[in-house]
Amino acid sequence: MPKISNKGILMPASPIRKLVPYADAAKERGIHVYHLNIGQPDIETPAIFWDKIKHIDRTILEYSPSDGYVDLKKKYASFLSQTRKYAPIKAEELLITTGGSEALLFTFLSILDAGDEMIIPEPMYANYVGFARSGNIEIKALTCHFEDEFRLPATEAFEALITPKTKAILICNPNNPTGYVYSNKEIERLGKIAKEHDLFLIVDEVYREFIYDNDEHLSVLDLPGLEENAILIDSVSKRFSACGARIGAIVTRNKNVIATALKFAQQRLSPPTLAQIGCNALFDVEETYFKTVNDRYKKRRDLIYELLNAIDGVKCHSPKGAFYTIAQLPVKDADHFCQWLLESFELNGETVMLAPGSGFYSTPGLGKNEVRLAYVLKKESIIKAVACLKEALRKYNSLF
Amino acid sequence: MPKISNKGILMPASPIRKLVPYADAAKERGIHVYHLNIGQPDIETPAIFWDKIKHIDRTILEYSPSDGYVDLKKKYASFLSQTRKYAPIKAEELLITTGGSEALLFTFLSILDAGDEMIIPEPMYANYVGFARSGNIEIKALTCHFEDEFRLPATEAFEALITPKTKAILICNPNNPTGYVYSNKEIERLGKIAKEHDLFLIVDEVYREFIYDNDEHLSVLDLPGLEENAILIDSVSKRFSACGARIGAIVTRNKNVIATALKFAQQRLSPPTLAQIGCNALFDVEETYFKTVNDRYKKRRDLIYELLNAIDGVKCHSPKGAFYTIAQLPVKDADHFCQWLLESFELNGETVMLAPGSGFYSTPGLGKNEVRLAYVLKKESIIKAVACLKEALRKYNSLF
Repeated sequence: MPKISNKGILMPASPIRKLVPYADAAKERGIHVYHLNIGQPDIETPAIFWDKIKHIDRTILEYSPSDGYVDLKKKYASFLSQTRKYAPIKAEELLITTGGSEALLFTFLSILDAGDEMIIPEPMYANYVGFARSGNIEIKALTCHFEDEFRLPATEAFEALITPKTKAILICNPNNPTGYVYSNKEIERLGKIAKEHDLFLIVDEVYREFIYDNDEHLSVLDLPGLEENAILIDSVSKRFSACGARIGAIVTRNKNVIATALKFAQQRLSPPTLAQIGCNALFDVEETYFKTVNDRYKKRRDLIYELLNAIDGVKCHSPKGAFYTIAQLPVKDADHFCQWLLESFELNGETVMLAPGSGFYSTPGLGKNEVRLAYVLKKESIIKAVACLKEALRKYNSLF
Repeated sequence: MPKISNKGILMPASPIRKLVPYADAAKERGIHVYHLNIGQPDIETPAIFWDKIKHIDRTILEYSPSDGYVDLKKKYASFLSQTRKYAPIKAEELLITTGGSEALLFTFLSILDAGDEMIIPEPMYANYVGFARSGNIEIKALTCHFEDEFRLPATEAFEALITPKTKAILICNPNNPTGYVYSNKEIERLGKIAKEHDLFLIVDEVYREFIYDNDEHLSVLDLPGLEENAILIDSVSKRFSACGARIGAIVTRNKNVIATALKFAQQRLSPPTLAQIGCNALFDVEETYFKTVNDRYKKRRDLIYELLNAIDGVKCHSPKGAFYTIAQLPVKDADHFCQWLLESFELNGETVMLAPGSGFYSTPGLGKNEVRLAYVLKKESIIKAVACLKEALRKYNSLF
């Protein structure tokens, strides 16, 4: 039998999705599963999206240009320019991708060769690891700590990891999975490191509309003098609750990066055409949309923070942004606990699915007592989901 | 300034799309460009697709499962089973991807490590090269010849390229760019080589509905005893004239390949949701659809074959399948000629865009006097496009 690749064998399964078969089995047994494992919001996609889709006047579903429709690029750039402190974004500084996922993959392939290194603070969005391994790129993880609220480590800690093979630093701001929003000082410090060591600074800002405590958010594209280093990863998925659209973007003032990413984009011919048409309308959403959605998430954030910390032995910080939080649980092996939640537990016919923390760390052994929770469900569901978690912890700790 | 990757620098631009800026410039000068460069058919996407899209009853555009919606997988498998000679395809033997493009990338990454080798007859679909390079995989090209109608080389020629690093053979059947349909004997011979040398046999069959002369088409999934070796690359793009959907599939009875490809699929979370909903309806298209479309392409095939061979110094074969043909032109450098067609030529305010042949060869220097033409336009447009080509050749050869 021919062998599959070592890359495939060694590729870790996604911590967000690897327990899906257990969840499916639980559902088949008639159990209701609260999905706090994945950032799939229950917020409605703005109606203008559906209106646009229902009124498409075409007969042929054609390829779009490889970098996306030019009218979408213009609207997207103009939307991103609204909140720009430094200088507006031009359409040609933007390349439309199949979700933020493809924006990450194309960026990595465009700037890092096999064996090249990229520094990423951990815990990190788990799929960064997968995209890097797809291109044989090495991730150097810089551990951030629960006790520090996952703040950025000192400049010296970054510099200790920089080698001649280091080509980029990547952060997610607001952060998935921690919910931390980096301060202006932290972002400026990263900019300085990138400039000084001639590195790319990739910032995944797909959660930038989700900030709850009037914290400032400094975009990587607003760092003066960093035009050639700064690459923004963007997506409509979370901003407009349109995860299934699979529309994202690479945004950078570095022309070489755009031109190179375009070569990778041309290989796959075109991002999805239908979703591009719908997303074009999304950028016309009324201003109040963001405030309304933000208020809803803030209430959920406050609720889950309060409920989690009220459980014996559970600790979490009040996340400043995105819609995730990392909680420490009174268990030794959260991977085992999360699977047990789906396989062997129920409370009144319900259980909860969480993402085990270990999957967000690149360093083996870390995050074993942590889980990531996405507060993407309505209040009543969050209350019931956390009630499941509380009862499950009691029962689990009496068993193991 | 930080440097982009060597991978990016060395990545060849797509022969199908690299001249797009010249075409855009021509259009800005008011010139009509006939697109024979890309397999974007002018055939209407079946109305049931648009009906389904217009009647979507959802409020949240969610992620789908990473391997695609299970109802789509079932329908897709059942459609593929209709023409199966050997055994039906089960839904779990299929993974939904973002177009055939992603099916290729995930297959390559799942079975080939950096430095591993894959044998592909050339001329080949140019993007195979790009997907392979994305994963640092080596392509060993086996040259097929215009004079042979691009038939498969002898078994010994394959075996001469096999090394301990060879993991797979990849062919496209019916072939893009040549239009050749491999005989049952050729496919069986490939199956034997794959089995004997323990290799994967990947067959890109996205054009399998487009066969014009009652030739048989033997699918790689119909080779008995090759269950663990055979991987089918599929797509709805050409079958249903739905290129912009970006829906394709990896189909194989090898469970390890499906499980490994799923890891890569989970990284990018989900294929496009809207298009999956629409494509679900496509598999219900009435049987007559394929015959009608096939008849139209056959007429176009006959027309372009006749028109091209009537030009002094131009030669092409009558392609047996797909909707491409490779033509030999009386020019020394078809890359230069194709660019000149867009930059410096017009006939009554019109010109034609072709894909230079060199981009379909991995061996440097080959295909310099060849172009690929896609006969995806209506009769009148093909006539005018070839008239442009004829006049352009006359003028070009008087200038250079």
